[in-house]
Amino acid sequence: MVNIAGREAYSYPLLIGQLLASVKQYRTTEIVSAGRRFSYVALRERIHRLASLLRSLGVQAGDTVAVMDWDSHRYLECYFAIPMMGAVLQTVNVRLSRDVIGFTLRQAGAKLLLCHAEFEPVVEDLRDALPDLEHVVRLIDGDEPGTYEALLAAALPEFPFSDFDENAIATTFHTTGTTGDPKQVFFTHRQIVLHTLAASATLANQPDGQGLRRSDVYMPMTPLFHVHAWGLPYIATMLGLKQVYPGRYDPGTLLALKKQEGVTFSHGVPTLLRMVLDAASESLAPWTMLVGGSALSPDLAREAARKGIVTVCGYGMSETGPILSIGRSGPEDTIDSKCRAGFPIPLVHMRTEPDGRGELQVRAPWVTQGYAAQDASDALWEDGWLHTQDIAEIDPDGGVRIVDRIKDVIKTGGEWVSSIEIEALLMSHPAVSEAAVIAIPSKKWGERPKAFVVGSPGTAAPPPQELRAFLAQFATGGHISPYAVPDEIVFRDSLPRTSVGKIDKRLLRQNAESEPNAVLSTRIATQGDIHGP
Amino acid sequence: MVNIAGREAYSYPLLIGQLLASVKQYRTTEIVSAGRRFSYVALRERIHRLASLLRSLGVQAGDTVAVMDWDSHRYLECYFAIPMMGAVLQTVNVRLSRDVIGFTLRQAGAKLLLCHAEFEPVVEDLRDALPDLEHVVRLIDGDEPGTYEALLAAALPEFPFSDFDENAIATTFHTTGTTGDPKQVFFTHRQIVLHTLAASATLANQPDGQGLRRSDVYMPMTPLFHVHAWGLPYIATMLGLKQVYPGRYDPGTLLALKKQEGVTFSHGVPTLLRMVLDAASESLAPWTMLVGGSALSPDLAREAARKGIVTVCGYGMSETGPILSIGRSGPEDTIDSKCRAGFPIPLVHMRTEPDGRGELQVRAPWVTQGYAAQDASDALWEDGWLHTQDIAEIDPDGGVRIVDRIKDVIKTGGEWVSSIEIEALLMSHPAVSEAAVIAIPSKKWGERPKAFVVGSPGTAAPPPQELRAFLAQFATGGHISPYAVPDEIVFRDSLPRTSVGKIDKRLLRQNAESEPNAVLSTRIATQGDIHGP
Repeated sequence: MVNIAGREAYSYPLLIGQLLASVKQYRTTEIVSAGRRFSYVALRERIHRLASLLRSLGVQAGDTVAVMDWDSHRYLECYFAIPMMGAVLQTVNVRLSRDVIGFTLRQAGAKLLLCHAEFEPVVEDLRDALPDLEHVVRLIDGDEPGTYEALLAAALPEFPFSDFDENAIATTFHTTGTTGDPKQVFFTHRQIVLHTLAASATLANQPDGQGLRRSDVYMPMTPLFHVHAWGLPYIATMLGLKQVYPGRYDPGTLLALKKQEGVTFSHGVPTLLRMVLDAASESLAPWTMLVGGSALSPDLAREAARKGIVTVCGYGMSETGPILSIGRSGPEDTIDSKCRAGFPIPLVHMRTEPDGRGELQVRAPWVTQGYAAQDASDALWEDGWLHTQDIAEIDPDGGVRIVDRIKDVIKTGGEWVSSIEIEALLMSHPAVSEAAVIAIPSKKWGERPKAFVVGSPGTAAPPPQELRAFLAQFATGGHISPYAVPDEIVFRDSLPRTSVGKIDKRLLRQNAESEPNAVLSTRIATQGDIHGP
Repeated sequence: MVNIAGREAYSYPLLIGQLLASVKQYRTTEIVSAGRRFSYVALRERIHRLASLLRSLGVQAGDTVAVMDWDSHRYLECYFAIPMMGAVLQTVNVRLSRDVIGFTLRQAGAKLLLCHAEFEPVVEDLRDALPDLEHVVRLIDGDEPGTYEALLAAALPEFPFSDFDENAIATTFHTTGTTGDPKQVFFTHRQIVLHTLAASATLANQPDGQGLRRSDVYMPMTPLFHVHAWGLPYIATMLGLKQVYPGRYDPGTLLALKKQEGVTFSHGVPTLLRMVLDAASESLAPWTMLVGGSALSPDLAREAARKGIVTVCGYGMSETGPILSIGRSGPEDTIDSKCRAGFPIPLVHMRTEPDGRGELQVRAPWVTQGYAAQDASDALWEDGWLHTQDIAEIDPDGGVRIVDRIKDVIKTGGEWVSSIEIEALLMSHPAVSEAAVIAIPSKKWGERPKAFVVGSPGTAAPPPQELRAFLAQFATGGHISPYAVPDEIVFRDSLPRTSVGKIDKRLLRQNAESEPNAVLSTRIATQGDIHGP
């Protein structure tokens, strides 16, 4: 805590509260959420009231306060008020199973939970297993007594926020990786402020229609429980944009808000983009969507463009806070180059090992310094570089192309095949809307690719042999290795998803392993014609 | 120095070198200067070569390296290479007198000086009085043996830059205030990086035509020796803009470069803007000019607009690193509101004492922590706020209007009159192009305003009585106090300027004091008709 009296210079810590220093000027700009709309002046006051409420419930600096809510103004207020008190904001992934939610709340030691009414049954079940949890504040959209809005209205409108060390932990959450248990990551005030500044400078300086401008209207489509919704709520607030919070993601609601509130900027994983495109019957322009989390396929980008959505690719992960790179494109860029992971944003160092193409390793002032578990941290950091576990190519101009997750790469016949590449080619077939390719163990080849595909709506599924022949053309043309053509291509009604909307390849692999005989027999039957000399 | 080995997280210091982390992507963007043009890839290499050269001349971390040059690529390279070595860059105001230059070099303890051939006679004169100075490197536009370009070409193209404490001093220079001796200020790496990020986010996010976009071409018109040219060379480099360095400011050269290189963004004091407007015979659009240092009068802004220049006001001072606020305007804004000092940029706290209208006091993570002289620092900082010595009004929307410098305010007849306000009204008269109003001591009224004006080119100077009558209308209309109408209005061919182009009111006051009788007699003769009840 800095408490300077007399004639001494103020030592300015980089605290989340400082992002609000200049927002007074946005007194007519609105936050829209859950049927409410209020200005930035009101936002500031609501943040103070929330802190007053939490203090009255015993929250002190260093305590962990957890939130279970859909995207709302309440969540935005928690993004500020909780860390500004010196407490730690735990954003809970509400899509996880009850037991895993319990694990994350317990590991973080949450003392108070702000919980949407919808999740109360889950928390009720868990309560006995959460010895640290002292209070639960009920979140609903209305203002019934005893719930969030009523409590806020009764709380003091000025909270005596004070300064503290910028390296204090501001937020914590669990990565929802496709391997192993959720891992707890931490971000400090300094990290979040620096991420906000560097990403703001980049997004604001994008070519027209590919970034954020003061006149843009922002609506998240990456949940606020997931890596601070990629940091965009902090960015949008610092830049003074109109913000729209859509609650639980429902295509109809998202499209209605887009239209009613004039939303022009969102961000999300490809699955969300697909969901919105499938539900839209008319052009959605102007709408810029920052896409990340998984590779954006050129076909999905094209389909988005046809419906008026400009897609901009970004790259990052839970451990990196998250934004590391953002794409931009000129008229000469192909759709393929637009689907790269973009260019490193200011202050981000990237390298691959080996140089040119290899594991992507990064440094940035906002990446997590480790996990709660030391073992996992050791694997994350080596030689002072954060190891992303992604294989990437870095172009001479610094542009980054993610080849694959290391664990998703298929090593077959002595070659390394990118699952992402095969998936993109499969999705370029008119009958395929989604694709996932995994490795299946093979005695002869080490591994072999196996594809799961979802057909395009209203299109008859072609025989798998036709899709294999389609891919084989690219092998003949030298675009992919002949080894990259999967032996098996299986149609499915849908693909399993993780809690944040990525395709769950771990589950696909597990299921494939549980039926080894059937898989092997099919593979053996189809292998020869592809792998011949 | 951080030297992490093994499995430990990288502790990322905010160093000026980190601003170059992502510039590899700008490999086709050019730096244009002194007849040369080269890419950002070459810029990076030249920075390494310069550091190698300086190391070979004995420069170590902690040493001070001074620069005396006009605006050039060399200066830009010094902005990076010197602080990146852990050395301190001293930017020397070459417009000061020989003795004052000697004072600043001596106080900073410069060990090596990079000196343009034009200033060698000055340095030759001073050499005996500079015991710390060991080397002088000659700067010329050509590449003769033994001069900058030749030495760079012979130096090693890779320098082993390493990390160090972000609170290390990066730059130092002397404020050229209109009172007292030059005062030495310091800026750390952390301060410069944070200024770069926050100002970049703001400028990039301005309304169209009022800020910086990736496609903009940047040319400074605030000298690089003055407060890091307001930080713009760092900003332009981090954002990857084409940059044009014009050497010594000559209107013909500036306009020729503007046209040839497609310059679209510059910054400077009102005097520079006037100089360019006077020299221009055709429209200069598109050209955005960030104007600061002194108040921009509505008439100069209008004249600029007629010639195609969009003026954007900014506010800051040498002590503040400098940018604190930047203006923006919509179609509904009047020219008057456009001439405000703008809105605080992210992370900047502003208050006035008393609240609403009073001395402007600020906090930002990049303002200087003090002067070399402790006494002066004590006056700068009080209660943890930096005292700007400017009187300001802060609007409910956070917009800032600078009323006057505290020492320029005129206390007359119990009222406080803003010299800036009277000057703007005088300049709105068609026969007046420039104006300066100072306070003259008065036994009866405490002080009285006195005006010095420069006539418009090609317009006959009206009798002073006509200008007084012109101002009196505004007093009658209630726009200004009757006390604000100067007793004396004197035509001059030009007004004295400080070394950075501001009107030198201190000199005007000194001269007025040296002729007290004449002034008093005129004042007494003209006072009655204005100050009647």
